Amino acid sequence: MKLWGGRFKKSTDKLVEEFTTSLLFDKRLYREDIAGSIAHVKALARAGIIESKEADALIAGLSEIYRQIESGKFSFDVGDEDIHMAIERALIDKLGPLGGKLHTARSRNDQVALDLRLYLKQSITSLIKSIMAFQNVLIEKAEKHLDVIMPGYTHLQVAQPILFAHHLMAYFFMLLRDLDRLKDCYRRTDVLVLGSAALAGTSFEIDRQFLAKELGFSTVSQNSMDAVSDRDFVVEFLAASSLVATHLSRLAEEIIIWSSQEFSFIELDDAFSTGSSIMPQKKNPDVAELVRGKSGRIFGNLIAMLVVLKGLPLAYNRDLQEDKEALFDTFDNLQLSLETMKGLISTMKIKAQNMFLAADGNFIAATDYADYLVGRGVPFRAAHEIVGEIVKYCNQENKQLSHLSLEELRNFSQLFEEDALKLADTRTVVERRLSFGGTASKSVKRQLREAKLILNKEQKWLAEA
Amino acid sequence: MKLWGGRFKKSTDKLVEEFTTSLLFDKRLYREDIAGSIAHVKALARAGIIESKEADALIAGLSEIYRQIESGKFSFDVGDEDIHMAIERALIDKLGPLGGKLHTARSRNDQVALDLRLYLKQSITSLIKSIMAFQNVLIEKAEKHLDVIMPGYTHLQVAQPILFAHHLMAYFFMLLRDLDRLKDCYRRTDVLVLGSAALAGTSFEIDRQFLAKELGFSTVSQNSMDAVSDRDFVVEFLAASSLVATHLSRLAEEIIIWSSQEFSFIELDDAFSTGSSIMPQKKNPDVAELVRGKSGRIFGNLIAMLVVLKGLPLAYNRDLQEDKEALFDTFDNLQLSLETMKGLISTMKIKAQNMFLAADGNFIAATDYADYLVGRGVPFRAAHEIVGEIVKYCNQENKQLSHLSLEELRNFSQLFEEDALKLADTRTVVERRLSFGGTASKSVKRQLREAKLILNKEQKWLAEA
Amino acid sequence: MKLWGGRFKKSTDKLVEEFTTSLLFDKRLYREDIAGSIAHVKALARAGIIESKEADALIAGLSEIYRQIESGKFSFDVGDEDIHMAIERALIDKLGPLGGKLHTARSRNDQVALDLRLYLKQSITSLIKSIMAFQNVLIEKAEKHLDVIMPGYTHLQVAQPILFAHHLMAYFFMLLRDLDRLKDCYRRTDVLVLGSAALAGTSFEIDRQFLAKELGFSTVSQNSMDAVSDRDFVVEFLAASSLVATHLSRLAEEIIIWSSQEFSFIELDDAFSTGSSIMPQKKNPDVAELVRGKSGRIFGNLIAMLVVLKGLPLAYNRDLQEDKEALFDTFDNLQLSLETMKGLISTMKIKAQNMFLAADGNFIAATDYADYLVGRGVPFRAAHEIVGEIVKYCNQENKQLSHLSLEELRNFSQLFEEDALKLADTRTVVERRLSFGGTASKSVKRQLREAKLILNKEQKWLAEA
Amino acid sequence: MKLWGGRFKKSTDKLVEEFTTSLLFDKRLYREDIAGSIAHVKALARAGIIESKEADALIAGLSEIYRQIESGKFSFDVGDEDIHMAIERALIDKLGPLGGKLHTARSRNDQVALDLRLYLKQSITSLIKSIMAFQNVLIEKAEKHLDVIMPGYTHLQVAQPILFAHHLMAYFFMLLRDLDRLKDCYRRTDVLVLGSAALAGTSFEIDRQFLAKELGFSTVSQNSMDAVSDRDFVVEFLAASSLVATHLSRLAEEIIIWSSQEFSFIELDDAFSTGSSIMPQKKNPDVAELVRGKSGRIFGNLIAMLVVLKGLPLAYNRDLQEDKEALFDTFDNLQLSLETMKGLISTMKIKAQNMFLAADGNFIAATDYADYLVGRGVPFRAAHEIVGEIVKYCNQENKQLSHLSLEELRNFSQLFEEDALKLADTRTVVERRLSFGGTASKSVKRQLREAKLILNKEQKWLAEA
Repeated sequence: MKLWGGRFKKSTDKLVEEFTTSLLFDKRLYREDIAGSIAHVKALARAGIIESKEADALIAGLSEIYRQIESGKFSFDVGDEDIHMAIERALIDKLGPLGGKLHTARSRNDQVALDLRLYLKQSITSLIKSIMAFQNVLIEKAEKHLDVIMPGYTHLQVAQPILFAHHLMAYFFMLLRDLDRLKDCYRRTDVLVLGSAALAGTSFEIDRQFLAKELGFSTVSQNSMDAVSDRDFVVEFLAASSLVATHLSRLAEEIIIWSSQEFSFIELDDAFSTGSSIMPQKKNPDVAELVRGKSGRIFGNLIAMLVVLKGLPLAYNRDLQEDKEALFDTFDNLQLSLETMKGLISTMKIKAQNMFLAADGNFIAATDYADYLVGRGVPFRAAHEIVGEIVKYCNQENKQLSHLSLEELRNFSQLFEEDALKLADTRTVVERRLSFGGTASKSVKRQLREAKLILNKEQKWLAEA
Repeated sequence: MKLWGGRFKKSTDKLVEEFTTSLLFDKRLYREDIAGSIAHVKALARAGIIESKEADALIAGLSEIYRQIESGKFSFDVGDEDIHMAIERALIDKLGPLGGKLHTARSRNDQVALDLRLYLKQSITSLIKSIMAFQNVLIEKAEKHLDVIMPGYTHLQVAQPILFAHHLMAYFFMLLRDLDRLKDCYRRTDVLVLGSAALAGTSFEIDRQFLAKELGFSTVSQNSMDAVSDRDFVVEFLAASSLVATHLSRLAEEIIIWSSQEFSFIELDDAFSTGSSIMPQKKNPDVAELVRGKSGRIFGNLIAMLVVLKGLPLAYNRDLQEDKEALFDTFDNLQLSLETMKGLISTMKIKAQNMFLAADGNFIAATDYADYLVGRGVPFRAAHEIVGEIVKYCNQENKQLSHLSLEELRNFSQLFEEDALKLADTRTVVERRLSFGGTASKSVKRQLREAKLILNKEQKWLAEA
Repeated sequence: MKLWGGRFKKSTDKLVEEFTTSLLFDKRLYREDIAGSIAHVKALARAGIIESKEADALIAGLSEIYRQIESGKFSFDVGDEDIHMAIERALIDKLGPLGGKLHTARSRNDQVALDLRLYLKQSITSLIKSIMAFQNVLIEKAEKHLDVIMPGYTHLQVAQPILFAHHLMAYFFMLLRDLDRLKDCYRRTDVLVLGSAALAGTSFEIDRQFLAKELGFSTVSQNSMDAVSDRDFVVEFLAASSLVATHLSRLAEEIIIWSSQEFSFIELDDAFSTGSSIMPQKKNPDVAELVRGKSGRIFGNLIAMLVVLKGLPLAYNRDLQEDKEALFDTFDNLQLSLETMKGLISTMKIKAQNMFLAADGNFIAATDYADYLVGRGVPFRAAHEIVGEIVKYCNQENKQLSHLSLEELRNFSQLFEEDALKLADTRTVVERRLSFGGTASKSVKRQLREAKLILNKEQKWLAEA
Repeated sequence: MKLWGGRFKKSTDKLVEEFTTSLLFDKRLYREDIAGSIAHVKALARAGIIESKEADALIAGLSEIYRQIESGKFSFDVGDEDIHMAIERALIDKLGPLGGKLHTARSRNDQVALDLRLYLKQSITSLIKSIMAFQNVLIEKAEKHLDVIMPGYTHLQVAQPILFAHHLMAYFFMLLRDLDRLKDCYRRTDVLVLGSAALAGTSFEIDRQFLAKELGFSTVSQNSMDAVSDRDFVVEFLAASSLVATHLSRLAEEIIIWSSQEFSFIELDDAFSTGSSIMPQKKNPDVAELVRGKSGRIFGNLIAMLVVLKGLPLAYNRDLQEDKEALFDTFDNLQLSLETMKGLISTMKIKAQNMFLAADGNFIAATDYADYLVGRGVPFRAAHEIVGEIVKYCNQENKQLSHLSLEELRNFSQLFEEDALKLADTRTVVERRLSFGGTASKSVKRQLREAKLILNKEQKWLAEA
């Protein structure tokens, strides 16, 4: 009979047990569950609800169960429904009726919300570490290849030349916002909900501030119904994670494109590529493809959790049990994505020559020709049109901008002078873009300095979290 | 070294192995993989690519591996990447170089697409069986309670009285369309893709019609690139499943509402309910809540797969590896939902008296008063307004329609006569709705007859699938 | 006061009117609504509920309203809530009390479901026409460039050479399944729901078979509650459309990649490209990018509709009003995507030389070297490894396979003979893939013949739909 | 010819114009676009790129265009593609070549990102105001009905009695977190991106700090590629909005359930309800249903934007044009949902008597009986079982807990004494739950005080934003 079975005449249908059990996945929360129970026992003792000797025995029992689970010696029984019941039953088996005192002034409703918050706080700091490690690799790679020039693309068309380091740093700043979002999510997760009981609070004098301190929470929830029935912190995590996955999917797409024979901008390390079962020549960017593909499940988990919550009346409903697998799956896949992409980026070989050649030509300096005319008083819109005509001419003549003589240029505008012949120098084009945040070396170096300062600061946050 | 490792100088990074392996979940496809390999061996032999003795040895080896996996004696190694490589390596371990002949004229690209199609065909027929078993329970329940009247709701407001059986049959017809969609999906899944090799077809003379017959496929794919790169059949399955889940979520919502103390239309069997860890009086409709909540993950899996496919260039990309878990998860959860809901519906107790009382009163016959006036020449819109005024009057006087005297009715329209006093009889209101598909007993009985004929026909389809 | 306002004491809040009105978007259904009303009037007359003179007047009134809307002379008032009320009120304004007879034996619940089904049937045949027109362009393009060879990719790595026509035909077959899914959806949409009234059917003797015939429906719904409360046919349409969008997004991605300077496989026509506001040289594949991006809203509309339906109790709930915009938006964007992509494909220039050069080399014949050894008795797995070693050697020596002398080949296997030197000929590699569905010219021509037969058959379906 | 058409030989296909134009929806950004252009003109003048007289003329021209649009006198032409080009062309029409100087040192890529950020900042503060107004109504309603007791539910089963005010305050705290998330999103949106030009920055000496100050941004983006290619701030907004929608959908569901005849806890005001076209008695909670249904499109918009971004290479791609409609649609629907729900809550009538009766009985004090035994030394788990048996006994005897005599209670445990007979008093059960965040009046009053302090603080944030 179930621990809650007093009023029931029949035992649960086997299929129902199989369908409703969460033990297979929520046993992952055993650390949090036991930590929560130990703190709860202390609070019960403080309130005089149990004696201090009883508290000691309960804590000892819980600690032993903890060690048993850690060492793989604990036997889980699907009939236990969930990790909470599994541990409580084991405690009762161990301590007799005393074990039955543990669940005083508590419900599984606040218990599971506590466990999930403890677990998520841990997951977030763990992800943040992985993000920072990844950002460090981006910085290193950027610094190592600070002189490499590549085409900047819009619409996957060669647009303007940029530093490869500038390109990498774009991802640094995307991930920085992701990190920031995760920290905000951490703040909203860092709330003690234990003591909310089933939904209405408890009549026992539980000191919730004490519990918060014991369990390392910054604040205490203000409304017991809200505390047991909302999972917005899980959705927020899944949404922040979806943006990490989005950013990684974009980088992965670029890795895949750059690895193609046609681009040939990079070569992946053998240890970070795989082969084909049929084509002996193949070396595939599978890691990047999987990272790109993982965005699917990570978005899916987000929408899943929103759907679960949609239209649920207060307070706790069993639908909420669906919160865990989505969270675990997103965390696992995202962390592994970050770690493997870190290795891939850190080991990949840059083919600087190919990158430069792709940038050099393709009318990549066209904007600078227009800007040149602007500097001589031509309205930009007119300058743009003049250069458009020059490009059309080059296409007809099969020429690059750098091939044009001064005479040819003057056919389009008399304002072109000798110095215009140097406009097409790709490196100069890059170095002209000195605006704050632009791609000139000076600007990129500033970004790198700033990035390191930021990571230092984040390191401190981590140390205190 | 990997079986594809000829051109590689370094072995795969450990983290990459962990990240890219699909073995943990795709080993579920071992039956399909081995069946596919055995058929492939036969085709190789037919084409004279291997000798018939070799074929026999390969088939014997594959059969032995099959038995080992079935009996739990096969040891999986994460380094094997996937079920295909695990089996091929075991075959080579067993047979030596001969084992290396298996993968001739084949790639993992067509192999995995084959496995998935075989698996999905099986899943679909399995789901269809569960749907039909569920539909049978709906029919039985409807027939057993054919005289039970309940309120029909729109906007969760009492609208018009209906037969409880009519309400149940609405779900029968929803599920019938689901079944129909799954059959359509089956037809599009039932296509042999083996022989497409990596993407371009093979130079070996593989008889694909023979393969189709061996493996029970109705047709053969027409374009090798399409065959290895699309997963639309998986998306279609996930979409059809999402509609099953939607329909179940609606029924689950109703079960939950009907189980509330305020409605008290049904009582769930103890074996299909659960209790509370804190509140001793509770008996909760957890099964229905979980079924409702499962819609989240099932919609999530659908969106996940669409996201995976979005923007992928042809042909095979590793992103496609993400197709399996979504499919497995949806199938498992949907089938279990159907099976437990079947038990829940079949065992729940109908509180016919409460249902009737909720229908009787609440102005549920108001439409019939308007229709009465229409029968006497009043335009419906005017009749609607007159009855609206009567309802307003009743609300002020705190009366039901059946309480009104003829005089009172005549204050609103002189067309009311003696027979109007019987308009409010709830059972008569039901029986008036004789239109095809309406709620009158005669119509509901017709639905039941039709439903049984349909299930008989579907049974035949199943037998042939 | 609203037409339903009899029992209300206050008029609707202005904000509520703004929030709940659907008129701004559902006025698009005026054709269907009026057609439905005209058929309904006929059925009322047949049942003797109204006189035939009244029917004539109502039909004339409705026809006049139709012409007014068509010519833009009808004035819509947001207070009318929806297209149904707008038309009914106009009819009453025109005909007086007689207009009030229109809504007899009908509810907006079955009326809107009817309108939506009529509209969707029309939308589906319209989309199917666009798909077929697009498929025709694929066939034409494939036939025109039947001799063009390009690299086939897996993982965006050069894999095996294929015919460009083969690549295009992969999309033909994807779209063929989409078309098939839309036809299945059409079949399930093609059901008359009128006569279901609010939810329970009607007490008037409406001949629903007659209505079905009048309005061109193949069957009649069997359960009135199901008829007014489900929107699975909308979800099914949105899911089938999501797969069309998925397929288009993949082709769009390829167009974008092929248009890059690095690939340079195609050149888009000026009329199907756009420029940059700042960079005078740019010519961007915006159409393909937008088509790729449209997948977002189309998937979003699908999930939106599933979320709307999740957990709704029977029968009609106002949430269902959200069904229309999703449907309209998906239809509009998908049809425009198909039409513009058709133009883009049909006008784009193929750079056959570049395609061939990308295929020629890059070890694209490696599989054929392995197959060659298999033909001489080497197990494929061993052959694969040998060729892997050859590729490794080539990489070190910076050679292509075609550069290797017989001696060099024999260093890896003594089985190589004189004829092996011709293995690398790219065109021969293509022509070897003669398996059914493979890329050899003969196979591709067969696909083209089959494709035309299929389109002929579909044309007939369309003519009858 | 387009303003960027210099290099093109053909004009854009009509269908392409229709497909690619964003003018129909992005004209909504005219305020932001013109504000951005005016600041840009000032920066061009500061940098000496244009003369101050020219700046004055440009600003005057832009201001005039602004007034024309505001007054509906501006004529939009679909050929203008987007709001940026429409305004630039109008400026050139007005000022001649001088107008062509506006687009110097700028691209539509940074321009549209600027516009969107300005717009979103405004939208967020607007939504926050609506949330706070809604929270104020919750507080007022809670204070007005501070003595109303209702059943607290878990699993929609009566669980423990709570204050209605406590229930309302749960939503206050949910919305408070939503507000907090929107503020975090505001912070990350509040970044100047202008000056990033196409993707690489600009060679003109634009003072971006000056621009930030002019346009009211707190910081300046650090990497130009990141600035033009990411839309994570839009996704973050859509995710935060999805949680608001989720919370509203839950409240809406409760409103719908409470409005049912069976619950009858509230009565909606006539001005916030609607009627039926067929059933004269109906009064429907359409507003709440639509609010619940709107969650669909709001989740859909979130997933749409994630899908758009998935796998896009840097930097700007035309897919990003899809960012606006999702944002506008979510903002419009969410704000209207908040405003109408505010009116609905504020005007609805509370049926306190019905609420209390539903709480009184139904074994709602069962937990307190168990807690009573705990107070006398019984382990909670054993106490739970004893009370479970009591409930079973009551069910058999058809009694409520309050009906039990001391003798009857003692049949289950000798520890029950005289004072146990008062355990079932519902109001006392409520007042016992004194734990922080619990439902006792004292705790709820504390929540109300805290809530007002918080809103005061948020008011200050708003004033400064």
